[in-house]
Amino acid sequence: MNKPYVAGIDIGGQTTKLGIVDARGSVLAQTTIRTDNHTDVNLYIEELNNALIKLSARIGSTEKIRGIGVGAPNGNYYTGVIDNAVNLVWGGSKAIPFSKLLKEKSGIPVYLTNDANAAAVGEMTYGAAKGMKNFIMITLGTGVGSGIVIDGHVVYGHDGFAGELGHTTAVRRNGRICNCGRTGCLETYASAVGVARTAREWLEMSQEPSILRNYDNITSKDVYNAAKEGDKLSIEIFNYTGKILGEAFADFVAFSAPEAIILFGGLARSGNLLLKPIVEHMNENMLFMWKNKVQVLFSNLKESDAAILGASALGWDS
Amino acid sequence: MNKPYVAGIDIGGQTTKLGIVDARGSVLAQTTIRTDNHTDVNLYIEELNNALIKLSARIGSTEKIRGIGVGAPNGNYYTGVIDNAVNLVWGGSKAIPFSKLLKEKSGIPVYLTNDANAAAVGEMTYGAAKGMKNFIMITLGTGVGSGIVIDGHVVYGHDGFAGELGHTTAVRRNGRICNCGRTGCLETYASAVGVARTAREWLEMSQEPSILRNYDNITSKDVYNAAKEGDKLSIEIFNYTGKILGEAFADFVAFSAPEAIILFGGLARSGNLLLKPIVEHMNENMLFMWKNKVQVLFSNLKESDAAILGASALGWDS
Repeated sequence: MNKPYVAGIDIGGQTTKLGIVDARGSVLAQTTIRTDNHTDVNLYIEELNNALIKLSARIGSTEKIRGIGVGAPNGNYYTGVIDNAVNLVWGGSKAIPFSKLLKEKSGIPVYLTNDANAAAVGEMTYGAAKGMKNFIMITLGTGVGSGIVIDGHVVYGHDGFAGELGHTTAVRRNGRICNCGRTGCLETYASAVGVARTAREWLEMSQEPSILRNYDNITSKDVYNAAKEGDKLSIEIFNYTGKILGEAFADFVAFSAPEAIILFGGLARSGNLLLKPIVEHMNENMLFMWKNKVQVLFSNLKESDAAILGASALGWDS
Repeated sequence: MNKPYVAGIDIGGQTTKLGIVDARGSVLAQTTIRTDNHTDVNLYIEELNNALIKLSARIGSTEKIRGIGVGAPNGNYYTGVIDNAVNLVWGGSKAIPFSKLLKEKSGIPVYLTNDANAAAVGEMTYGAAKGMKNFIMITLGTGVGSGIVIDGHVVYGHDGFAGELGHTTAVRRNGRICNCGRTGCLETYASAVGVARTAREWLEMSQEPSILRNYDNITSKDVYNAAKEGDKLSIEIFNYTGKILGEAFADFVAFSAPEAIILFGGLARSGNLLLKPIVEHMNENMLFMWKNKVQVLFSNLKESDAAILGASALGWDS
């Protein structure tokens, strides 16, 4: 095979990671560029393509790259379009025909999906879900994303946008206001931002002593550190977050009966502090046939590689 | 082809419908037997097989039947087992290896699934979902069942039990007690039984005048008839039921991004009385990209044939 590699590109609001990956899932070379240098997407694409050419020199040239997989917020697998991605300076409320633009510039087939779906593909190809046909990937970062795999395939749905479990609102009807314009979305509670929001709310509502009262701009990391030091309120915040996730997971299971739910992202680094209440409340709320039968696992991909690996796995489609 | 027909069997608590179907979806012959004549499943299988032999005389013999599709409560597609079907007198809390038993008795391959999945297959093969690759079937009967189709395939999940959307509890946390032992399940509100339950609760809680106060054992049919006559409370009950379904549907869409949600079953005969509030609240609660884009349709299969057609469609798998 004269094209033995794929490229993986993970587009975040500030940083774009790109890497070249072989069939065994080794990241052979990687680099980053700024995502927010240009408001004109064409200038961004040009910079991205130049970075790819430079990176490819380490494995020969871009001639050896079979396909490019891209994970981006609101990336649509069917259309190759990034739609309404408000976190990307060149995205805004526009529809960006990303795959087409990058393919024209690079001469390589481009496969786009959203970041959580890319993570699911990566986990299935190289990670904790290797060998699994039915699982749900939940990314707990600034927001909550999801990638659903059924019978070995990512679920894209009728329009390519399936798997927006961070925006299921049933978690708390008429709950917190979400960026999406609605209320009660899972991600307003169970993301890194949601955890910090819970901390601020609770500190305001109660007089309970807490290490967190010493901080100015509380982050989920602060809550984690405080909980680790035994801070009662912080431990309770994780129990509450885990309870909301566990309740939501019980309903997700009723949909697709997965073998496992796999957690990824910054908040997933909280380990047992988050996992224990999730598992407890998930099973407490689970329909009888699934009680204690669905695993909740952490991603086992090396964090620095995971985003690139996930996106790159799509590149093998070509 | 010397085996041009399939048989469809729909097992309900009291009645079992069976029919013989051709490739165009015409029910050539049909009959019913009692489901609850025998507590021993072997005696039931014998009676069922005799009925099938008798029915097959009209198309020649059972030699012409390629496969038998069976829809039954808690029927598992992977294992062919009916598990814990408390509504079936020979089911109880046992695991009945139904496919195996019927195959041994009839000599014909048997494919089992639950009733809602059978309905989804029927709708996709012959009904309102013909040509659709992604839709969700919701059966509104005594309970609420669901069959989820993604990329043209029914979702069975890791264990064969996927698609229990009637038992998602997020609809009202800590809500009504459900037969499944938990609280707040969708089917405690949005089934025929749920509608009657709402009526009884509301009549007790308020002094509002209503035709329903003239009835003793209120059924969903009574509420429908009263609403049709302009009874305000009864119309409100349908609005409430539709609101709960609409909210739930908005979350279901976030999972699999279906082209349509298709309603089937007794309560679906309520027409616009139920459909209007469903569509209104679904779109009100929908994430922006799906607002006003997902159809809610009624099944268009002839009711007397639908259950048989749905089950029979599985028979073509052989």
